[in-house]
Amino acid sequence: MTAPLITNGLINQLQNICGNANVFFDVESLHHYGHDETEKLLYPPDVVVKPTSTKEISQILKYCNENLIPVTPRGAGTGLSGGAIPQNGGVVISTEKLNTILEIDERNLQVTTEPGVITEVLQNAVKEKGLFYPPDPSSRGSCFIGGNISENSGGPKAVKYGVVKDYVLNLEVVLPSGEIIWTGANVLKNSTGYNLTQLIVGSEGTLGIVTKIVLKLIPLPKYDLLMLAPFASLEKASEAVSAIFRAGFTPSAMELVEIDALQIVSKMVDSYVVPIDESIAAHLIVEVDGNNLDVLMSEMEAIAELLNQYEAGEVFFADDAQQKTELWKLRRRTAEAVKLAGYTIEEDTVVPRAELPALIKGVKALGRQHNFHAVCYGHAGDGNLHIRIKKEGIPNSYGNEEMNRILRALFKLVKSLGGTISGEHGIGLIQKDFMHIVFDEANLNIMRSIKKVFDPNNILNPGKIFDL
Amino acid sequence: MTAPLITNGLINQLQNICGNANVFFDVESLHHYGHDETEKLLYPPDVVVKPTSTKEISQILKYCNENLIPVTPRGAGTGLSGGAIPQNGGVVISTEKLNTILEIDERNLQVTTEPGVITEVLQNAVKEKGLFYPPDPSSRGSCFIGGNISENSGGPKAVKYGVVKDYVLNLEVVLPSGEIIWTGANVLKNSTGYNLTQLIVGSEGTLGIVTKIVLKLIPLPKYDLLMLAPFASLEKASEAVSAIFRAGFTPSAMELVEIDALQIVSKMVDSYVVPIDESIAAHLIVEVDGNNLDVLMSEMEAIAELLNQYEAGEVFFADDAQQKTELWKLRRRTAEAVKLAGYTIEEDTVVPRAELPALIKGVKALGRQHNFHAVCYGHAGDGNLHIRIKKEGIPNSYGNEEMNRILRALFKLVKSLGGTISGEHGIGLIQKDFMHIVFDEANLNIMRSIKKVFDPNNILNPGKIFDL
Repeated sequence: MTAPLITNGLINQLQNICGNANVFFDVESLHHYGHDETEKLLYPPDVVVKPTSTKEISQILKYCNENLIPVTPRGAGTGLSGGAIPQNGGVVISTEKLNTILEIDERNLQVTTEPGVITEVLQNAVKEKGLFYPPDPSSRGSCFIGGNISENSGGPKAVKYGVVKDYVLNLEVVLPSGEIIWTGANVLKNSTGYNLTQLIVGSEGTLGIVTKIVLKLIPLPKYDLLMLAPFASLEKASEAVSAIFRAGFTPSAMELVEIDALQIVSKMVDSYVVPIDESIAAHLIVEVDGNNLDVLMSEMEAIAELLNQYEAGEVFFADDAQQKTELWKLRRRTAEAVKLAGYTIEEDTVVPRAELPALIKGVKALGRQHNFHAVCYGHAGDGNLHIRIKKEGIPNSYGNEEMNRILRALFKLVKSLGGTISGEHGIGLIQKDFMHIVFDEANLNIMRSIKKVFDPNNILNPGKIFDL
Repeated sequence: MTAPLITNGLINQLQNICGNANVFFDVESLHHYGHDETEKLLYPPDVVVKPTSTKEISQILKYCNENLIPVTPRGAGTGLSGGAIPQNGGVVISTEKLNTILEIDERNLQVTTEPGVITEVLQNAVKEKGLFYPPDPSSRGSCFIGGNISENSGGPKAVKYGVVKDYVLNLEVVLPSGEIIWTGANVLKNSTGYNLTQLIVGSEGTLGIVTKIVLKLIPLPKYDLLMLAPFASLEKASEAVSAIFRAGFTPSAMELVEIDALQIVSKMVDSYVVPIDESIAAHLIVEVDGNNLDVLMSEMEAIAELLNQYEAGEVFFADDAQQKTELWKLRRRTAEAVKLAGYTIEEDTVVPRAELPALIKGVKALGRQHNFHAVCYGHAGDGNLHIRIKKEGIPNSYGNEEMNRILRALFKLVKSLGGTISGEHGIGLIQKDFMHIVFDEANLNIMRSIKKVFDPNNILNPGKIFDL
């Protein structure tokens, strides 16, 4: 593709479509929309537009497609793989003004929403009706549901309830041509043609822009119980994780947090509810939920007993809502805290659950070999381990040859354990160079060809997931 | 595509690849592989081959692709949309000799299997390890897991546990070119590139041939309870269905069977466990499962109370394993029984759950208007209604203009209710002409283009889902 022409004509066109008040090209805006939460990257766009309807997005895409202008769709900018970074300049389309929950269908347990609604706002709105939308990325207080669709996000509840893809029934999508389609139907089962819905979920804004979302809801469980178990060894902790599932339990959360990360986040949020001392290497956070409190209590006891067999220290049960909130706050703010402490590079590896001990061991060995610090935390029940890396003088992996060598070794290890690069953050900008480690050229060719089906001119989020 | 050349060269080639004993072109074989369970259709292929390895399938596809010979992949031939019918002749590849369960991974709660394993055999094998693979199409005693992948099958348990797509982690697929890919990784969460796994699931053998399957398993619930509730009105029964979910219950099965169907199947299997009299229009079958019997008992009571509010007659609780087996046998053999009774045409409509009463009402009105008999049954909890149609002198919908007019009216109704054509049977051969009722041309163009990405020569199951 030749370099895009960002001209006054483009600005005028965007202003005609969306109104002057929704088009931005001041330095501050361009800086703000030039980064997300990924590493320390900054690539300002040429112009930012905040459409207020599907029709406006359609008109913008049609114009940009005809004029070969790159467009980067953006939710709340909380992404961790650079999916919303406009590294080629061009237009950023922010969905922040498409922020209405359109319908909570209590008859069918479904919600229809625009993409710019904050995930937690959506969760709370359906909760008021006794309904539950489980996927809860750590950033749920600020991320948009549209971004969650793009990255196929997960979160702690995924281990029992599944990820975003398991709740998406139907999507309104604007194609790069400006055409508007619905991908499916508002039904729980669907064998009608290729599953375009699932193709769009997790496609990171490279195939179309999602403008309406129909999600499945489930009844809200009445109770949850939470406990925290300290371990003297990271590997023992991760062995215990896999034992719990083998014993037939399905906790509603099963998180692992390494002690270094807990130390950092405890200090940042000034909370010391979690025991931290030299004998502890990591904590497991275990939650169960359901409608019968007695059943949950006996489940919790049985799980605690099992954890003891894996050399857990004294288990701490969260007694009330306040303690639970405190514990979850610590867990949810871990990424932010360790990033502020210099662990700017985050990986989102995922392996079969029982391979977690091997992965953790391998990460630590790589750290010693290549002289970097790593702290690990994440959704251990899913085998999804976030690895935060601090290496003196190297704030970004993207564009750094030394860091890339290290990550190649990491992903080769992950692949050898039956895992893959990303469990819930996406590939985006920063991990595309590693796709060939987990996929054959035949897979990548299919993906590239699918991209061309949707976006023959490569205007929509170009340079993400793979290069064409 | 020009007419294929079926020559001795082809036969020789197949014999070279698979051995003489695995290539069939006798009349009986061609007849057997010329139909599945769909209507009364018969289109014999030119030759049937039964490969014993992925490599053989790769060699066959490569040859057929180079020589533009149509290939129809086939599981157990239990399909209901004609997906395995070789209406263009050519080669049928039967997966019946790829029938090994390769590994039950108890550490990670996964199973890896070949496609020609009977679904119930797979379920029983993992059950022995205390594990559960829930999707259970009515034909599970004879259908293959590979066919289930192709059609994204469901079954009674889907209402609580989801359909096939919710359990597929990774697939080995032979592309029409002969290339062999794995679509994903053996992990519970995956945001690494486009979701090729979900694109293959439900693609009805038009994009590639699945040769290995990795499925997620869950712990086997310890108990289940089953009850049967008679209703004087079909619409009241279907209103009750939606009320149960609104009240916060998630049964592990929620089936509706119209009395005419029950009458026919009871007679066929010579079982009269289900009350049949003139005051009854339909029965609901409700199952709950879990690990705590007391909890299940009180759930069952609460559901029975709710059913009473919707004018259920006397509820029958299945007391023991034998009664449960008897009830399920009746339900599972309904399709076969009503087909034998002349209801040869089956539709697989799906609507949002609360629209079931409107759909049933509409079906009955269409029957009066167009002079056909319809019996309804199916997975009411999912809004997935099977409609079996008997019309004097018209055994097939495929190729019958009068029946097509009726089905167009039916699918327009379904679409107007927010539903779609197929919940779990697929589009196959017989429903492709109705795709434009539920999809815009833009959707269909995308699907056709995706087909061309995988199969540029249109050799693999051509003429299924849509025409190119």
